[in-house]
Amino acid sequence: MADASDRGPVDFRTEPATYKHWKLAFDGPVATLAMDVREDGGLRPGYELKLNSYDLGVDIELYDAVQRLRFEHPEVGAVVVTSGKERVFCAGANIRMLSQSAHGWKVNFCKFTNETRNAIEEATGESRQTWLCAVTGSCAGGGYELALATDWIIMADDGTTAVSLPEVPLLAVLPGTGGLTRLVDKRRVRRDRADFFCTTEEGVKGRRAVEWGLVDEVVPRSKLDEIVRQRAREFAARTDRPAGARGIPLTPLERTIAGDRVAYRHVACAIDRQRGLAEITVQAPSEVPPADLAGIHAQGSRFWPLALARELDDLILHLRTNEDEIGVWVFETAGSADLVEAYDKLLAAHRNDWLAREIRLYLKRTLKRLDVSSRSVFALIEPGSCFAGTLLELALAADRSYMLDGTRPGDARPPATLRLTELNFGAYPMVNGLTRLAARFLAEPARVDKLRARAGEDLDARAAAEAGLVTFTPDDIDWDDEVRLALEERAAFSPDALTGMEASLRFGGPETIESKIFARLSAWQNWIFQRPNAVGAKGALVVYGTGQRSDFDRRRA
Amino acid sequence: MADASDRGPVDFRTEPATYKHWKLAFDGPVATLAMDVREDGGLRPGYELKLNSYDLGVDIELYDAVQRLRFEHPEVGAVVVTSGKERVFCAGANIRMLSQSAHGWKVNFCKFTNETRNAIEEATGESRQTWLCAVTGSCAGGGYELALATDWIIMADDGTTAVSLPEVPLLAVLPGTGGLTRLVDKRRVRRDRADFFCTTEEGVKGRRAVEWGLVDEVVPRSKLDEIVRQRAREFAARTDRPAGARGIPLTPLERTIAGDRVAYRHVACAIDRQRGLAEITVQAPSEVPPADLAGIHAQGSRFWPLALARELDDLILHLRTNEDEIGVWVFETAGSADLVEAYDKLLAAHRNDWLAREIRLYLKRTLKRLDVSSRSVFALIEPGSCFAGTLLELALAADRSYMLDGTRPGDARPPATLRLTELNFGAYPMVNGLTRLAARFLAEPARVDKLRARAGEDLDARAAAEAGLVTFTPDDIDWDDEVRLALEERAAFSPDALTGMEASLRFGGPETIESKIFARLSAWQNWIFQRPNAVGAKGALVVYGTGQRSDFDRRRA
Repeated sequence: MADASDRGPVDFRTEPATYKHWKLAFDGPVATLAMDVREDGGLRPGYELKLNSYDLGVDIELYDAVQRLRFEHPEVGAVVVTSGKERVFCAGANIRMLSQSAHGWKVNFCKFTNETRNAIEEATGESRQTWLCAVTGSCAGGGYELALATDWIIMADDGTTAVSLPEVPLLAVLPGTGGLTRLVDKRRVRRDRADFFCTTEEGVKGRRAVEWGLVDEVVPRSKLDEIVRQRAREFAARTDRPAGARGIPLTPLERTIAGDRVAYRHVACAIDRQRGLAEITVQAPSEVPPADLAGIHAQGSRFWPLALARELDDLILHLRTNEDEIGVWVFETAGSADLVEAYDKLLAAHRNDWLAREIRLYLKRTLKRLDVSSRSVFALIEPGSCFAGTLLELALAADRSYMLDGTRPGDARPPATLRLTELNFGAYPMVNGLTRLAARFLAEPARVDKLRARAGEDLDARAAAEAGLVTFTPDDIDWDDEVRLALEERAAFSPDALTGMEASLRFGGPETIESKIFARLSAWQNWIFQRPNAVGAKGALVVYGTGQRSDFDRRRA
Repeated sequence: MADASDRGPVDFRTEPATYKHWKLAFDGPVATLAMDVREDGGLRPGYELKLNSYDLGVDIELYDAVQRLRFEHPEVGAVVVTSGKERVFCAGANIRMLSQSAHGWKVNFCKFTNETRNAIEEATGESRQTWLCAVTGSCAGGGYELALATDWIIMADDGTTAVSLPEVPLLAVLPGTGGLTRLVDKRRVRRDRADFFCTTEEGVKGRRAVEWGLVDEVVPRSKLDEIVRQRAREFAARTDRPAGARGIPLTPLERTIAGDRVAYRHVACAIDRQRGLAEITVQAPSEVPPADLAGIHAQGSRFWPLALARELDDLILHLRTNEDEIGVWVFETAGSADLVEAYDKLLAAHRNDWLAREIRLYLKRTLKRLDVSSRSVFALIEPGSCFAGTLLELALAADRSYMLDGTRPGDARPPATLRLTELNFGAYPMVNGLTRLAARFLAEPARVDKLRARAGEDLDARAAAEAGLVTFTPDDIDWDDEVRLALEERAAFSPDALTGMEASLRFGGPETIESKIFARLSAWQNWIFQRPNAVGAKGALVVYGTGQRSDFDRRRA
């Protein structure tokens, strides 16, 4: 079965010039992203990507397009998703690929595709780059889920075009990319209609699709292009993105993988296979930030916060997909907290600039990716570290943090400190809409306000512990044993139990569509992905397309 | 492996005189419920209930006690949960029982235990019967989760008493009875402390337990009884329950099971094994309600709404536990909508009476049980039916409803109608806190207000469809085929996929602690209950107590 190890690592880095499956076109403020999947272009051998079905490789390109549209095209205010095939919009995730995949691969694939669809919604909501969708031909399963991630779905009224979520009746699994949640929570389709829709292979077309809220308009095929163009221009006209600005090219991300070390410019990762952990060190910027906005734009993808976001993002994806036996990620930082704070201040000062906004949102998405990763996250805070502002979020995202109280004999560096900046108080909400500080202090919301007054202050171990920002503060006598034991113990627990526990403890408080997708929907889907009715020898996912019939165990659990 | 079929049906009916595992004592406004599990009193053979560990049988008695305390003891304003054993509070769910059980049994067991703990919280919040907990000795796993369901936890400070959730480190499963959710969402324990706590076998005791919010107070063993008595009296003093009222005995529930028919006084169920469905018919009351409160009290458990709640509750539990291959529940009603409405009006008029409140809350809990049942629920609305008010909730709880438009040839009865009553607008919230009407009209909240003005009106099929209250309204020509096909199709789908789909579509909108328990927590737990690391030949749940070590697959999914 396909998994991370058997065919070399997956690389998430790509660029439009090498896309196999998507075509990007630009017409002033409107971009069009056409899905045109190459049947023989699967990431792994063993399946053909027929009918615009997709695998991880297709979705990696989609993810790249979402990113580049935001950074490289400030002039774009609307993005139309459409199909490059004549008779099909998209058949969803490739079934053969899914049925061949190991459990972990399925789960990781769904997580990544979900994150990309969430990013599409964020582009609409926060980057003011509104996504819409023009549906012609069959739009099934993951195809419709992609449409659901856009803010306006226009469907051809041609007697054959239909939207559907046929997973339950055809494959005995759930629509795994947010479909069920978006039906009832985003589009607020009446639950009994959603029930009917999700059990109807052929889906719904025409007027009923609009009446039920499954799409926003149906139009004759002959008028489709014109109306899509018109809507796209209307949406684009509402943007606050600067039509005349120059985009920031996302230059190729430099990365070296040598043995068990992954290195970028500001982020390095050392994998300890025996201990089952990855030690991730984030370097502070090495120089003062540019003086003004023009300087940020001039630095472009070299600007430290943007470079950091890209490197951390790539590393998280790499570790998730290619290093699934490394269960514990240990974050450390090194460098000047003053410089980290200076960059935070610059981002905060220019928060209304389109690029500064994009950089903040990218950091936000990357930190969210960390929160929903099925890995234990620890932070080690030691002399020489710089857990300030944006980098402090890494410690706040951690399941647990250890901060050395004092110094070590022979180490002349001052004791470690933490520093809050303005960006800890709203810039980086989690999937549940809360800042990590608010999530931490659910019991005492007033603490967050008090901490706000202390932004900029250096908090040593005692102050950080009193402020509730760290878990434990051993001194140098206890540190080695305490930290070593905690890491060893963590690596020895059941990976599955940890995943369920972490997913439950990380998201106290309110829920959003995103948090519901990663909780209720994904957890149920993961369960179903383990059930014989789906993945057993006669499971629906396995026999699909073979002409064999599934023979379900009829017991309800 | 233990499942529903191999040892005869489970009976949920019990009464204090036959309890094996709990001792109920009364002291004016304070009741004490002592857990004193009989080691040899397991519901199934093959395990011993050591250290106050529990199985479904123990929890059935707890459930019964929760019910009777509310109905039979209006004078009780506080309930103390304590242990009848000297050195242990409760070791949680019995591990050997769990490891012997089939997957479905585990899942169903956890669901029932969760519902009972939710009912304990509802008793505190809505019946004004405050539960508190006196912890002496080890209080581990499900033991601590029981404590967490109470509103005040007092722990002995004696050097050995501790609370713990050792499931992850010991058993590679999650605390399955709400523990993780209640830690971060109810008690708002800081997530990193919760992380540490949930991975620490020995748990936390003394001051730290209070500082971290795991318990509310620790007191010397010598003062424990006195302080518990004092707190209980304080809580009891705040109740609005009438100290001088007479309780309502919950008389033995009459039920006959003959072949595939289960019959109560007002509820009947016919099981069609071939089609995999249960046809459940609820009868309207046969006579006018009593004229006043005194009449309700005089009728006691014969009062139709209370009898209905008890019968429906028992039937749902019976079908869930003993008929797991019956995947579709079809609800029908018969009788006079006028009489149903009259009873609803009576309950609404006396909403502040303790008994009327209890009856409404019992109906609320029963309907919630229906919502979280892993069965497809259909409602068939035909001539002669009485889907009014409380009974209309059954149709609103259904995944789908069919209402016959018009009459059938040869049937002189008038066409079916629906009728809203005041009780549809707030009496019966779902686990997510929404009424079923509000959940139905998430997209158009104003519709609910408009419908309120139409309470009491008879809505025929066309009006009901226009109002959005039913899914489909076939006429007599289409009815048979449409309904038959829908039921056949439903019964043919994968039970697992349906369970995940229904759990996802039923609960749009906000989330509460309860809804999070049934979504995030239970879904993850169900997943883990399928994973080899927990239940494989060398899974932690299987080898526990054998001296063998688990050999985990280290891949994170």
